[in-house]
Amino acid sequence: MAEDRELRVRTLLETVRADGRTALTAPEGKVVADAYGIAVPGEELATDVDEAVAYAARFGGPVVMKIVSPDILHKTDAGGVVVGVEGAADVRAAFHRIVENARVYNAEAKIEGVQVQELLPKGTEVIVGAVTDPTFGKVVAFGLGGVLVEVLKDVTFRLAPVTADEALSMLDSIKAAEVLRGVRGQAGVDRWAVAEQIRRVSQLVAEFPEIAEVDLNPVIATPEGAVAADIRIILAEQQPPARKKYSRDEILTSMRRLMQPRSVAVIGASNEQGKIGNSVMRNLVDGGFAGEIHPVNPKADDILGRKAYKSVTDVPGEVDVAVFAIPAKFVAAALEEVGRKRIPNAVLIPSGFAETGEHELQAEIVAIGERYGIRLLGPNIYGYYSTWQDLCATFCTPYDVKGGVALTSQSGGIGMAILGFARTTKTGVSAIVGLGNKSDLDEDDLLTWFGEDPHTECIAMHLEDLKDGRAFVEAARNTVPKKPVVVLKAGRTAAGARAAGSHTGALAGDDAVYDDILRQAGVIRAPGLNDMLEYARGLPVLPAPRGDNVVIITGAGGSGVLLSDAITDNGLSLMEIPPDLDEAFRRFIPPFGAAGNPVDITGGEPPSTYEATIRLGLEDPRIHALVLGYWHTIVTPPMVFAELTARVVAEFRERGIEKPVVASLAGDVEVEEACQYLYERGVVAYPYTTERPVAVLGAKYRWARAAGLLGSDGSGSGRLGGGS
Amino acid sequence: MAEDRELRVRTLLETVRADGRTALTAPEGKVVADAYGIAVPGEELATDVDEAVAYAARFGGPVVMKIVSPDILHKTDAGGVVVGVEGAADVRAAFHRIVENARVYNAEAKIEGVQVQELLPKGTEVIVGAVTDPTFGKVVAFGLGGVLVEVLKDVTFRLAPVTADEALSMLDSIKAAEVLRGVRGQAGVDRWAVAEQIRRVSQLVAEFPEIAEVDLNPVIATPEGAVAADIRIILAEQQPPARKKYSRDEILTSMRRLMQPRSVAVIGASNEQGKIGNSVMRNLVDGGFAGEIHPVNPKADDILGRKAYKSVTDVPGEVDVAVFAIPAKFVAAALEEVGRKRIPNAVLIPSGFAETGEHELQAEIVAIGERYGIRLLGPNIYGYYSTWQDLCATFCTPYDVKGGVALTSQSGGIGMAILGFARTTKTGVSAIVGLGNKSDLDEDDLLTWFGEDPHTECIAMHLEDLKDGRAFVEAARNTVPKKPVVVLKAGRTAAGARAAGSHTGALAGDDAVYDDILRQAGVIRAPGLNDMLEYARGLPVLPAPRGDNVVIITGAGGSGVLLSDAITDNGLSLMEIPPDLDEAFRRFIPPFGAAGNPVDITGGEPPSTYEATIRLGLEDPRIHALVLGYWHTIVTPPMVFAELTARVVAEFRERGIEKPVVASLAGDVEVEEACQYLYERGVVAYPYTTERPVAVLGAKYRWARAAGLLGSDGSGSGRLGGGS
Repeated sequence: MAEDRELRVRTLLETVRADGRTALTAPEGKVVADAYGIAVPGEELATDVDEAVAYAARFGGPVVMKIVSPDILHKTDAGGVVVGVEGAADVRAAFHRIVENARVYNAEAKIEGVQVQELLPKGTEVIVGAVTDPTFGKVVAFGLGGVLVEVLKDVTFRLAPVTADEALSMLDSIKAAEVLRGVRGQAGVDRWAVAEQIRRVSQLVAEFPEIAEVDLNPVIATPEGAVAADIRIILAEQQPPARKKYSRDEILTSMRRLMQPRSVAVIGASNEQGKIGNSVMRNLVDGGFAGEIHPVNPKADDILGRKAYKSVTDVPGEVDVAVFAIPAKFVAAALEEVGRKRIPNAVLIPSGFAETGEHELQAEIVAIGERYGIRLLGPNIYGYYSTWQDLCATFCTPYDVKGGVALTSQSGGIGMAILGFARTTKTGVSAIVGLGNKSDLDEDDLLTWFGEDPHTECIAMHLEDLKDGRAFVEAARNTVPKKPVVVLKAGRTAAGARAAGSHTGALAGDDAVYDDILRQAGVIRAPGLNDMLEYARGLPVLPAPRGDNVVIITGAGGSGVLLSDAITDNGLSLMEIPPDLDEAFRRFIPPFGAAGNPVDITGGEPPSTYEATIRLGLEDPRIHALVLGYWHTIVTPPMVFAELTARVVAEFRERGIEKPVVASLAGDVEVEEACQYLYERGVVAYPYTTERPVAVLGAKYRWARAAGLLGSDGSGSGRLGGGS
Repeated sequence: MAEDRELRVRTLLETVRADGRTALTAPEGKVVADAYGIAVPGEELATDVDEAVAYAARFGGPVVMKIVSPDILHKTDAGGVVVGVEGAADVRAAFHRIVENARVYNAEAKIEGVQVQELLPKGTEVIVGAVTDPTFGKVVAFGLGGVLVEVLKDVTFRLAPVTADEALSMLDSIKAAEVLRGVRGQAGVDRWAVAEQIRRVSQLVAEFPEIAEVDLNPVIATPEGAVAADIRIILAEQQPPARKKYSRDEILTSMRRLMQPRSVAVIGASNEQGKIGNSVMRNLVDGGFAGEIHPVNPKADDILGRKAYKSVTDVPGEVDVAVFAIPAKFVAAALEEVGRKRIPNAVLIPSGFAETGEHELQAEIVAIGERYGIRLLGPNIYGYYSTWQDLCATFCTPYDVKGGVALTSQSGGIGMAILGFARTTKTGVSAIVGLGNKSDLDEDDLLTWFGEDPHTECIAMHLEDLKDGRAFVEAARNTVPKKPVVVLKAGRTAAGARAAGSHTGALAGDDAVYDDILRQAGVIRAPGLNDMLEYARGLPVLPAPRGDNVVIITGAGGSGVLLSDAITDNGLSLMEIPPDLDEAFRRFIPPFGAAGNPVDITGGEPPSTYEATIRLGLEDPRIHALVLGYWHTIVTPPMVFAELTARVVAEFRERGIEKPVVASLAGDVEVEEACQYLYERGVVAYPYTTERPVAVLGAKYRWARAAGLLGSDGSGSGRLGGGS
């Protein structure tokens, strides 16, 4: 059956191509629709009046009847169209009338018959389509028809093909989802039938890559079904070229040698201060890298006291990484030597490739890399850090706070911001990697490795484009069940996308597609640079939540209100406190403290009140996460609050009770030290903001949902930019 | 005419009230609609067939005809309704048929005649309404009909009454505004006619406060007009009580004595460390207040070396402010003495009033205040700072960085966050004021004063509710043309609003109403606490922009992309660089630097490239604001960039060229010092974020538009939460 269907469509498409066309005609579209079971109105060509009656009877409801003649283009003008005909007598009369009108209109016209077509019922108009995205390839789209999709752009995307469940999830992913469930007393539509239309279109484009676009517009959805009033199919002018792919094992093998090298060569190492080859050498040495470091420089005998080699081929033993610190024009020749030496990784710091318009030079080194199987990092990067190896292969300065987050950036400037932020906040880092022009290694390779790396608990990536959106989604889907992946996608907006275009020559995809598909991949999208950095810092610190019930415990009622706002903004749920728990909290707080959630312990309370209520929050198994609002008073100074909170949280963690705890500290400058103290002890705490601690908690929840640790997968909610 | 109209409606409403009803019947609604020129379908009662023909002829188009009989309730069942009748013959036939059907249906029925009603054309359904908001009083609402308003809540509000222009602006303030201008080949609607419906409804409710709600739902809008298919009017059960109002002069007089006092009494001053009365005394003394400070304590002879008085009435000379540091139960008696001493301001630090359920105690002090004309600040506050007077009347610690921003908070915890943030960022402050329970003085009084205060260049307010939304809007409208007003409205979301309810007993209004009306008042709404604080810090530092053209100059291409995203998110415009200017920029940057906007000077450039391009940006009069993206390199270290930028900006300011300049610094920790250096020299600069500098610039632009300094008033754009 499937083979038969493929054959029919293949034959048809070949005919269209042979005609030199890219757009299918309506009857051709119907052939494709029928082959894939895409519901379109029934239609038949009746060559005589009895056939017309029979077809109309088969369709059941009212029909549209139209003259079919190659000589009559304007059917309505010719009186050749009758709408809403029902019953044998009326069909008979209409048939005769149409043919007569046609003869009067043009006596010479060759009349092939009368088309009898099902009349579509009234219903909710929806749009089902498929496009070929430059980043993600075949993508299906779904939205409501009319102003909703045209004016409000209320449309959702998924990678094709989709499963039945994914198709159904699209119905809930639009803002006006309620309409499909029925509003204003109207019945809801047949959701399964709509989803089937989506699924079948997605299958069609997945099986025929040469189909560039499909449009079912509108699909009429009713409580009884979903029928496409019109189907439009466009073929692609040409197929994109395939790029070289490495297997998962190959990626892991070369990435392990890159991130855990035993021997590093620096091509262009130098004794001259201010040169990049000098900075890289010094940073490798000063950073404390325990493996071998081999300077390569044809003009020096030793560099920083180490023996220098004329060529990398002269370096003794196996080398894992060659770091390039030479001008762009010398890279190709040196890369040949790296290939001959069978070094699996080249870290290409130099700029002067695609980013400055030197596309040929970049193509040349990519070809060399592919020929020898050398993986290329860069070019046009600051280098990379692998902190657990004390490895700083960059021209920046070493970084020594080992920890759980791996950060990557496409841009060098953003890489420097990552370094400065990490240093000032003492963020524990497993790696920082510059990707630059991504001539070869890109985010999917890094995700594949960091997903396996036991030191890495969270991955945060700044990117402006993806070379292969599908490979990224696949890598993300493999990684997300194990650890959170945060993505800052720059070039989100029209203005931003234009800047991306001029910066990297990358074709920035439509942000709506990125947004939906990154969510589908389970990735946490950061709305901005600082958010990415704070998520990177906070996510590894917090344990995963085991349920949706968030409780706010606050000394400042004012903070409680703002924290509640943030809870809603971040798609979290304020727990409805059951009476027994409410009573338990009330035992610790003054009689005028507010009941419910937030638990308002009021401002003048001693440390024991904070401690008792935090203990209760951690102890009660119905509560899954705590948001603390601290108010600086003389009775409970900041460090006293920080110490007691950290102590209680640690005690419960020792008992195996791990819940995410975040805190907002309102007070004088001493709260800054208290926040740092708390952060270093697993409580995500911020001064002067009620938004940020809840945003980090929200990111952790988004990951937990995507990783399947909580009930819902969160699709259809938690859109970026939330708001009121 | 207006009087006649008022009389007609007044008489009608009295009849309705006399009937004990609150809802008007349809015919009563039509009377009101006719009185106010609200377009509804024409309708007449025809008692004979000739009258029916005449009425139908007058209405022009097709009509609906309905039997009118007190004995026939179900007109359709009785065959008493015919829709779409047109032409004299058909009207005649329909009249006879209806009357006959009615006789057949019920031979006994008393037949009063046949109603002839205009048949509404097809068109775009919109909703026009008015409600009585607990905060803002009479408010008009406008939205598209159907799913847009019901599912997507795409509706906009204005204070009633509105002018014709304000009404027209509502048509552009909904997300689906494009629909009204015509989409999918449809003609747009008659915008003026729709606006007139809004204006007239707003007039009606403004003139009749007893009307609680009006609903025109739907209004059928066509290219030719706008007619309400249905009008529904509901009367209020009761009117809210009026509150005591002070005149602008009275407010300014008492506020001046509060903020610039010469003599302050501290009731409950104490020598005992840890007591609030001790903290307040010490802070007044240590803060360096140059006026008189009089401790009042019946049990002490001197406090902190100053003579103490048994009662405030014993204090010699005129006293401007009495600060209360005594328990709630003693406040009323002491306040009587303050009244007798004719002290105009009482600063009520104690808690234990409405916020703990002691509403009567609060009502008692309000009554005393009103009796003596004492303005009350609080109760339940930390006190207040007036930095230019070196006045710290709080139990916190003094703050001495004098500057341009006045900050107020309803909550003590938020007040402490303000203090800590200001101290750590060295924000220049003119005042910090706690409002607490707002038993008397509230945001409108403070706005009125700070609007006039020459030290104050920007006002930032945290609030959970407004006692009198209209008074606030009036004060804001007076202030905004002079200086920006930033508002953090807590309790924005459903969850937040609930917390506000339990915290202050304030009825939190619908956030959509707040959002629209605060924008209408020209206020900059901060999405969160940290945003409010950063706007407060940054707005006084930046000069006002004189036009919309923003240019990004960046060393890091990656920052350029993210800064462009932020530009769009904040409703700003990236200037289209004209060719001559592009060429001028190109002269300074490497050949592979990106053209256009962002101006990408590329990463490795020396200080001279930053300087030359910044100079050009400030020099060219077509550019109105600069966003700088700095990338930390050895060639241009952070402090070198900071120094050159500050120097060039200062030089241009001396020449009278003042443009807002903001900067994002990407780099290692040295960028933090560079940002502080820049901030103190009028350049709003942040490390590790591309979002924040542009958000502050965006806030400045929103103010400039609201203040009428730029072309557009910005209504209809710049919604909170922006996003892609």
